[in-house]
This record gives sequence, C-alpha cells and structure tokens, in this order.
Amino acid sequence: MPSPELTPGARGAIIPIGGAEDKLHNRKILHRFVEVSGGEAAKIAIIPTASELDSTGPRYQKLFKRIGVADAWVLDYRERADTDNPEWLARLGEATGIFMTGGNQLRLSTILGGTEVAMLMRRRNAAGVPIAGTSAGAAFLPEHMIAYGASGATPHAGAVSMAPGLGLTNRVIVDQHFRQRDRIGRLLTALAYNPFVVGFGLDEDTSAFIEGDRVEIVGAGAITVVDVSDLDHSGMASAKEGAPVDLIGVRLHVLTDGCSFDLATRRASPPPAVRREE
Amino acid sequence: MPSPELTPGARGAIIPIGGAEDKLHNRKILHRFVEVSGGEAAKIAIIPTASELDSTGPRYQKLFKRIGVADAWVLDYRERADTDNPEWLARLGEATGIFMTGGNQLRLSTILGGTEVAMLMRRRNAAGVPIAGTSAGAAFLPEHMIAYGASGATPHAGAVSMAPGLGLTNRVIVDQHFRQRDRIGRLLTALAYNPFVVGFGLDEDTSAFIEGDRVEIVGAGAITVVDVSDLDHSGMASAKEGAPVDLIGVRLHVLTDGCSFDLATRRASPPPAVRREE
Repeated sequence: MPSPELTPGARGAIIPIGGAEDKLHNRKILHRFVEVSGGEAAKIAIIPTASELDSTGPRYQKLFKRIGVADAWVLDYRERADTDNPEWLARLGEATGIFMTGGNQLRLSTILGGTEVAMLMRRRNAAGVPIAGTSAGAAFLPEHMIAYGASGATPHAGAVSMAPGLGLTNRVIVDQHFRQRDRIGRLLTALAYNPFVVGFGLDEDTSAFIEGDRVEIVGAGAITVVDVSDLDHSGMASAKEGAPVDLIGVRLHVLTDGCSFDLATRRASPPPAVRREE
Repeated sequence: MPSPELTPGARGAIIPIGGAEDKLHNRKILHRFVEVSGGEAAKIAIIPTASELDSTGPRYQKLFKRIGVADAWVLDYRERADTDNPEWLARLGEATGIFMTGGNQLRLSTILGGTEVAMLMRRRNAAGVPIAGTSAGAAFLPEHMIAYGASGATPHAGAVSMAPGLGLTNRVIVDQHFRQRDRIGRLLTALAYNPFVVGFGLDEDTSAFIEGDRVEIVGAGAITVVDVSDLDHSGMASAKEGAPVDLIGVRLHVLTDGCSFDLATRRASPPPAVRREE
C-alpha cells in the first residue's frame, strides 16, 4: 500500500520514464520534471543505485544543474549499509524532487527495499514531492515491479518475473524500453496474473506524469496503456510453463505526447488540439 | 470484394497459418486442413509460388500423401506466363483443397494477381473449397495484405506497407510469425489506417479456421485478435513518418487452441472445456 496522504490530493507526481530520455537537445521530460519539482528553486536528490557505473550520478547532477535548479545531490547508495548515512537522509528529506536512474531494478529493490531510504521516499511522495525514475528506476516505482522477462508479442506463462517494488502506487505496472525491446507479451503476462492493475508500456524518451487520477504523456515516443479491468477470461491459472495464455477482453490505447489517461474512469483522451478539431 | 457465394454459407474455410506449422509430429493444423478438404477423398492443389526453393512444393506433396489424401499436385507457378497452363488450371478446378506455402507474399501477389489462377481460386473458395496459406501464403489470403514492415511493439507511421491480396475476405488482416518477430506494432499500424477490419496476429504453428462468421483457433501458439471497431481516435491522419501513432480504444484478445472468435459480433470465447468449469 502507498504511504497515506496527509491531505487528500497532496501526493506528488509519480513519473516513470521509458529510458534513454533526451539529455542533449530540448530535454523535454527532464525539464518538465524540474518544473513540477519547483523549477529554479528545485533541490533534486539523484539515486543512481540501479547503475553500476560511477559516472551515472554525476552525469545527472550536471544535467540538472545545466537545466537550472537550486541544488542537485547524488545519494550514491551502493549497499544496504549506506542507507543509514544521516547526511544523505537529511538531503532526501530536504529534496523537492527525487530522481532514480536506470540500471537494474533488482539493485534498487534489494539495496533500498525496507530501509529508511525507501520509507522516507514513500512519505515524501505522499507529502507532495515528485519522484521520477528512468528505465529500471521506472520499473521500481510501483507496488508491483517487473523484475525481468522475455521479449515477444504474445503473453505466455513464465514470460515475466514480478517482485515487490517501492510501492508509490498499486494501480499501475510499468514496463520500459517498450517498443525498442518488444515487451508487450511480458506486460500482458504480468496483467494476466491479476487484472486489477493498469499496464503502462513506455517507449524510450517517453514518460507518464501521474498526478492523482490524471496521467499525462510527455516525450517523443508512445505509451501503450493496457487495461484489463473488463477482462472476460484469463487462462493464466491453467497455462503450462512456456505456453501461450488466453486473454479475452483486453482494452489497449497507444498514447503520445499530450494525450492523457484517467486512472479512475480508465478513459484515454487525445491531445487538446485534436479534440478542438473534432 | 470476395467472389460472391452461389448459395449463402457455401464459402469454403479460409485458413491462415502463422508459419512453421508442425510437419513432423502430430501435424494438427495440416490434418485439420485435410479433414475440411474431404479427408481421404481430398485432392490438394499446392501452390509454392511464394518460395524460391524448388523443394518446397514436393515437400508438401509428400506430407499430404503421408497424412492420406486421394491426390496432391504441385502447381509450380514461377512467372505470370505459367498461369495459362491448361493442365494446372484443370487441377485447380478439380481440387477440394488449395494450399499456399510460405516465402515472400509479394511473389504471390505479383505473379498470381489478376490472373485466371487468382480468379479461379476466388470462385472455388466461394463455391466451398477451403484455401489455406502458411506464412506468406497466409498474408496473401485477404483483400488487404501486409507486404512488409518493421518489428516492435508500438504503431508508428510508415511501420507497415500494405498491398492488395487475393481478396478471399475483406474483414480480416493477418500477420504471421507474430510472437517470434514482434509484429504487434505493424499490425496496429495497418489497422490505424482504417479501423474497418479485424487484425489477426498469428504465432508460428498456429492457425485460424475462418468459416463464415466463426473463427476457430487451432495449433500450439496464440492468435492475437486486434479489434478496432470501437476505436475512439486514430492519430494516423496527422502522424509524421516514423512517429508513433495515437490509438484510443483498441480491444485485444489472446486466443489459443480451441478458442473461437465471431467476426459478426466481435466476441471471443474460451475453449468449451473452460466454459464448462465456469
């Protein structure tokens, strides 16, 4: 369960990014993240734990400073013992925006899971602080995380391995590098287990800004929204390992920059400009 | 438009197969094709035109004889001039089942399109003769054929090139090797142009037996049925080349052996055994 909001509607944006976001040109997604984090007054905590490269944290630090923020800190949690670091906890408590880099989402869940860092991130988000993650960082944001899986178009039993994530929302499962790595089969498999959640398949350089019920798509690619709330039948309970899984009644939307999706009504809308023409 | 039926319901089965159908073990799909073509009394016309290998036709001839048919002929149309061959036309007129092999669907459309062979196949199907095609042969069956395209999960403008096919049905577009080659993006793109048709994404060793409105799935993999009849919005008209395309309101079913789909009502059903348990 997500940490409870102190006042209704107080929760900060939850921002999964599909990986490989533009860092050189207009940096649309990163700019928008800085904007919702306070703009020039923003203080960004960068968590590069998913990555095994020492350069990942400093690279984002430079990027955010170039965009123009009040401060940007690298909280370089390498192992569970690091999560007690009082200085880093103080910065995490002071940050107006938190950003998790890409890498391996199992590093995030195994190093941060259950620690004071994870609990503080959950409380800060509930109190209004936006939390973004790219690639592995995106996968880790929700309650139910895709740990790894197969590529391909058709769902099949065993195609995906799920694990508990950070738990900022339990209404969405995200998958990243979606078009680039052909992951619709594994996302469908994840949803076939329990049709409660909505699946977001995020192309690279594409993000979802989830603010309450409203989700806005920002970036150069598409988000494939897979809605199984009206599923008539899932064959997952009886499917053998490796066998394809029957799914009857999936609803699917492909949404690009400016489109929106409502998590409460499960309705998708085209960008406002298109609506005006209709 | 398909050739008109002389009596309602007379049309023979239209059987797209996703490629790489089982030829060594129980040969479920080929057995079922022989069965609907007359069983031991069947006379099968094999059209290996899509393939550039001389061995393709004789290989299927041996296969059908081993399964047990009255006769199996290879009609080896290599160029348009071959389509006048009176002996082959006579056999095509006598056949109780017609089978097109895999290869390149553009060979089928460029060599057979508009010839007496294509016209005779259309008339024979309207009169009750089943016509099957595997891989490229499957792509060629409908009015609207996917000629070639990109792989990947997200539809984008230019992802698919369409061409006129044999035209046995204008209600379905098929794509083959679906899971194996990650083709849901290009099938969605094909449907985004005109949401009139239903998309069938056929995994390898998987077939659709289309008999009137009823479609039954036979084989080891899955068919991904993409239904855009309730599409709320397609961004295709304004999408730039290479850019992802908005699609709002796609309905999707993943169906395996024994499942069925009704082309008139657009309803999918699980296998009868599962229904009994409910």
